[in-house]
Order: sequence, then C-alpha cells, then structure tokens
Amino acid sequence: MNTTTAPQVISPAQLLKHWQGHRALTRHVIEAFPEKDFFEFSIGGMRTFSKLTSELLSIAVPALKGIVNRAEKPYSEEETETLTTKAQYLQKWDEATEEINQYFKQIPIEDFEKTFNLFGQYEFPIIENIFYFIDNEIHHRGQGYVYLRALGIEPPFFWTRE
Amino acid sequence: MNTTTAPQVISPAQLLKHWQGHRALTRHVIEAFPEKDFFEFSIGGMRTFSKLTSELLSIAVPALKGIVNRAEKPYSEEETETLTTKAQYLQKWDEATEEINQYFKQIPIEDFEKTFNLFGQYEFPIIENIFYFIDNEIHHRGQGYVYLRALGIEPPFFWTRE
Repeated sequence: MNTTTAPQVISPAQLLKHWQGHRALTRHVIEAFPEKDFFEFSIGGMRTFSKLTSELLSIAVPALKGIVNRAEKPYSEEETETLTTKAQYLQKWDEATEEINQYFKQIPIEDFEKTFNLFGQYEFPIIENIFYFIDNEIHHRGQGYVYLRALGIEPPFFWTRE
Repeated sequence: MNTTTAPQVISPAQLLKHWQGHRALTRHVIEAFPEKDFFEFSIGGMRTFSKLTSELLSIAVPALKGIVNRAEKPYSEEETETLTTKAQYLQKWDEATEEINQYFKQIPIEDFEKTFNLFGQYEFPIIENIFYFIDNEIHHRGQGYVYLRALGIEPPFFWTRE
C-alpha cells in the first residue's frame, strides 16, 4: 500500500474505502428492486436499473485493470450480457468488490496525477478517471432512488456505507 | 493556497475544481427546468428540484464557514426560504460559487483529516464531510435528471463541468 508522511487531502486507502462504501450502498439499491422491475422498470425512456448496473460493472474492474496494466482496451458491456437474474448481478458485484481491492492497491500514489487514455478514449489524469467512476455510480444510483420511489419502495438511507 | 511537494492523490486546488465543476453542471440542470416544474414537479412523493436545490445551498457555504471557523451552527434552510423564482436561485448559486472559493482556500491541507462536528451533528474527518457535500449534490442532481426526462426534457451531458 502507498504510504507517505506528508499531509494528504485523502490517502489512497481512504479513497478506496470511500468508493467501496458507495458500492455497498449501490448493492443495497440493487437488492431493493423487485426482480421484474430491476430488468423492466424505467422512467422517461431511460435505461433500466439492470442496464445502469451493467454500465457500472463494465467500468469499475475493467477500468482499474486498464489503469494498472496501462492497457487501452475499449469499453465493452459484453461481460454483463449473460447476467439475467438479480442474484447473478449481485454475485458479479461481489466479485468486482474483491478485484477492485486488488487492483486499486497496485496504483502507486505518484501515479494518480499521471495521464492515461482510459478505454483508449478518455485521456485524463488517473485521479480524474477514478472520480468519474465514483461520481457516475452516485449519479445513476440517484436515478435508481427515483425508480424505487416511483414503485412505492423506500430506498436505503443515502448515508449507508456498509 | 496549500502547497506540498509530496505526491498527492488529489490536491486541495484540484478538489475545489472538482466540486465547482459539479456545481457548474448542477447550475445547468436548474436552468433546464421550466419555471413552474422547478417548483412543482416531483415523482413518487419526493421533493421538488427547488427543494433539493435549497438543501444544496444550505449545505455548501454554511458548512464551509462552519469548518473554517470551527463553528457548530445547526443546519438550516431558512436563508433559501425567500427564494421564489429560478432567477433568484441561480443568483444565490453564483454567490455561493464565489464564497466556496474563498472559504475552501482557508482550509490548510493538514486539516482535511481532522475531525469536526459539522452543524453540531456530523462528527467526521473534514475530508469525509466535504465528499459528502459533493456526493449528495451528485445524488440529488441524478434525481433531477429523471425529473427532466419524465418531463420530456433532454438533460445536459453528465460530463459537462463548466
């Protein structure tokens, strides 16, 4: 793990914990959907929450692998196309949790400011790409909250992190 | 401004830019609402986007003032209660933009890890409170995207940051 004695706004370990805390909340949101609605419900022509979850799964681990290996493999949702039940999505989510822990710890602290062309398409400092993953998850999960409310289901508290 | 030569995951200046980028996007979302819908439209019994915006305004500057002055003034939406038009909300938003810039720069880098009892209620490291402001804004703005879609209005691109 990266260590430094200089004061930090946030350490790599804290940023990983922050992200995984958000992922724990997203997992609860997936769980809160009735099976059918997870795959079928949407508002205003938007994607279903299963499709949004596919996007989140197709970013997190593949993006971190790309960053660690400096491999510019294009973005693809192919790996999530075989998922047809909520249980399968949750299993994939949990596998991703472990893989994120493994890969994230391989980013040296001095690399966060370095530029990498993620998915061969998004050329930004690595820290900006990682914030984008987290922010994009919060954004889509917020949409999931509206879907749940529209379905008459109480979503988990926003501050839930485990 | 805080400076350090040690490698950083993110610097205070970058974190401020990150937040203000999100605030610029939220401003576009406010602008995208028709006047009437900003104050009246909602889904599933949730708050209107004007109410959600009141929350964001009642957190950002008051929270930063609290952090900088170590003042545990309770959370209040009182200051936003006089806002009755979108134009007034946008003006308040722009005033907050300037105040956030002023106050954020007064947080020394070594303070981000220090604990503060925000609003006399949320006792966490300052960095966790600041991430909470940003994440809460992304969360509610994501809900605003669903409102706009349900109204048949195309929201701004998620990656808009100015």
